[in-house]
Amino acid sequence: MVLEMKVPHGDEWSALAPLFPVFFSYVLSFANLGIWWNNHHHMLKAAHHIDGRVMWANLHLLFWLSLMPFVTGWMGENHFASVPVALYGVDLLMSGIAYYFLARTLIAVNGAGSPIAVALGRDFKGKVSLVLYSTAIVLSFFYAPVSMALYVVVAIMWFVPDRRMERVVNE
Amino acid sequence: MVLEMKVPHGDEWSALAPLFPVFFSYVLSFANLGIWWNNHHHMLKAAHHIDGRVMWANLHLLFWLSLMPFVTGWMGENHFASVPVALYGVDLLMSGIAYYFLARTLIAVNGAGSPIAVALGRDFKGKVSLVLYSTAIVLSFFYAPVSMALYVVVAIMWFVPDRRMERVVNE
Amino acid sequence: MVLEMKVPHGDEWSALAPLFPVFFSYVLSFANLGIWWNNHHHMLKAAHHIDGRVMWANLHLLFWLSLMPFVTGWMGENHFASVPVALYGVDLLMSGIAYYFLARTLIAVNGAGSPIAVALGRDFKGKVSLVLYSTAIVLSFFYAPVSMALYVVVAIMWFVPDRRMERVVNE
Amino acid sequence: MVLEMKVPHGDEWSALAPLFPVFFSYVLSFANLGIWWNNHHHMLKAAHHIDGRVMWANLHLLFWLSLMPFVTGWMGENHFASVPVALYGVDLLMSGIAYYFLARTLIAVNGAGSPIAVALGRDFKGKVSLVLYSTAIVLSFFYAPVSMALYVVVAIMWFVPDRRMERVVNE
Repeated sequence: MVLEMKVPHGDEWSALAPLFPVFFSYVLSFANLGIWWNNHHHMLKAAHHIDGRVMWANLHLLFWLSLMPFVTGWMGENHFASVPVALYGVDLLMSGIAYYFLARTLIAVNGAGSPIAVALGRDFKGKVSLVLYSTAIVLSFFYAPVSMALYVVVAIMWFVPDRRMERVVNE
Repeated sequence: MVLEMKVPHGDEWSALAPLFPVFFSYVLSFANLGIWWNNHHHMLKAAHHIDGRVMWANLHLLFWLSLMPFVTGWMGENHFASVPVALYGVDLLMSGIAYYFLARTLIAVNGAGSPIAVALGRDFKGKVSLVLYSTAIVLSFFYAPVSMALYVVVAIMWFVPDRRMERVVNE
Repeated sequence: MVLEMKVPHGDEWSALAPLFPVFFSYVLSFANLGIWWNNHHHMLKAAHHIDGRVMWANLHLLFWLSLMPFVTGWMGENHFASVPVALYGVDLLMSGIAYYFLARTLIAVNGAGSPIAVALGRDFKGKVSLVLYSTAIVLSFFYAPVSMALYVVVAIMWFVPDRRMERVVNE
Repeated sequence: MVLEMKVPHGDEWSALAPLFPVFFSYVLSFANLGIWWNNHHHMLKAAHHIDGRVMWANLHLLFWLSLMPFVTGWMGENHFASVPVALYGVDLLMSGIAYYFLARTLIAVNGAGSPIAVALGRDFKGKVSLVLYSTAIVLSFFYAPVSMALYVVVAIMWFVPDRRMERVVNE
């Protein structure tokens, strides 16, 4: 597991209290990484052709995901201050864009009529996510809790995996 | 490996002495993670159908297992004080519940007459584990060593992998 | 992910400023590890025969790659001073040599007329990389930024995966 | 990679000097883990039947290997003092015994005439390793460099992977 929490000093429940923001960041990032991992797994399984372009698009996505522990830790340790919340959103946004590029690359490689292209369709949820992440980044400089709420909203929105993708994988 | 022990200062056997509680926690968590990993491996191999619900149930289990290094470290560094021992039990209990949910989800997806459903059966050991973990959490506030003993008992109980599951996997 | 950045103190953008050299090292090493991983993946997939010699050549490559986080951290934390930049180049050079040995071993095991041998060909890019890495190591003692530029040049040169290798894999 | 070296302060070659014992431990442990990983990979691939007993024997081996970073770090940071060198040997010895148990379990499960049983044969190298590790542990209390030399001898002895095993895997 890439995410990490430091063991606190003291052996009482009160010793855990300062960890709550860190834990909340941890849960949010765990959910986001889980969502990307699940959908990513489905998407690559539904693709018949993979080439160098796909591998680079995949590495690009991994790059932004690899920064998740850093931005998660910074946000949690600073109790959701504006700038760390914005940076967290930037990493989510860049991951979302990288995911979008990976999807487009897979469609380009497999053809517009391929099962993967049909399954991805117009990718409505993907586009809405990018809009919500961008909004959250801007809002973080005014009132960061709203940004946090938006991050949670996007995560919940993705919690239902794409049925169409599943259908393509199972066929 | 997710578990970790810090290298002590000093080059004598005595330098290792303060590490004994940490090492005991390490062994206990290694055994528990090994048990879950083994049974999990058998269970997923015996399942013919996997869908989005299964993947979420699986991620939920991974979430609680991912906290194991944290609760292990806290318990070992505080020499099995009541609250860390209770929190360790909470993580075991939540992992056990998540494992139970994953098993039920696999049965729901594969059907009541499927090999995986037959193999899991009434899941007697799973239910006993949840009862023992709950008991250990309550007892930790009175006398933590009893809780530790219960954690060890559950681990030993699981050390025999499920023969029925094995039979299903091998067929 | 093997690379790591420490979470800074302070919650302003200015807190991130001292991290820029670390981040730049991180990006460079991420790209290099990604390039090796991609090409390595293609190369092993194109090979039909693998034996003990291949496994040792592979371990040898992994050894130098495993030192990458160490040399990356040392270079980033010392703001690209001469010696850390040279050591970084030494690790890249040794990884490049190990990669070359692995390729030669695969050709020896699979035969000179095998698809993998044809795909690897004269390995022009591999040889140029070794020359550029060696040059960069020497230049680092005079003016380290030139070495950094050379490391970036080699990375860009490799960003286009080997089409011939892809063709062999896809056939 | 489980092994780790801390980035030193200072940007001169002299800053690396105190790391030499740590680096030597690192190389030795990397070689040992590589040897076990390679042989383990071959052995499991040559086995046709795997059951719960095999999985436990495997976990037992993983347990001792998982302690390798700890004993490696302790030995390297204490410049090969007697007790850390002895403890390192104990971990190698226990890993060797666990490996031996895993091999015996695989033979028991697959039958005395199975390819894996034939390939493992009398396991001469395995037994010699256990004797040399035991000798090294005892000698570490008199003159630790001899123990280090013995650890290196065993590693070199294993560097040639088992041809018979390879033959079985390739058939």
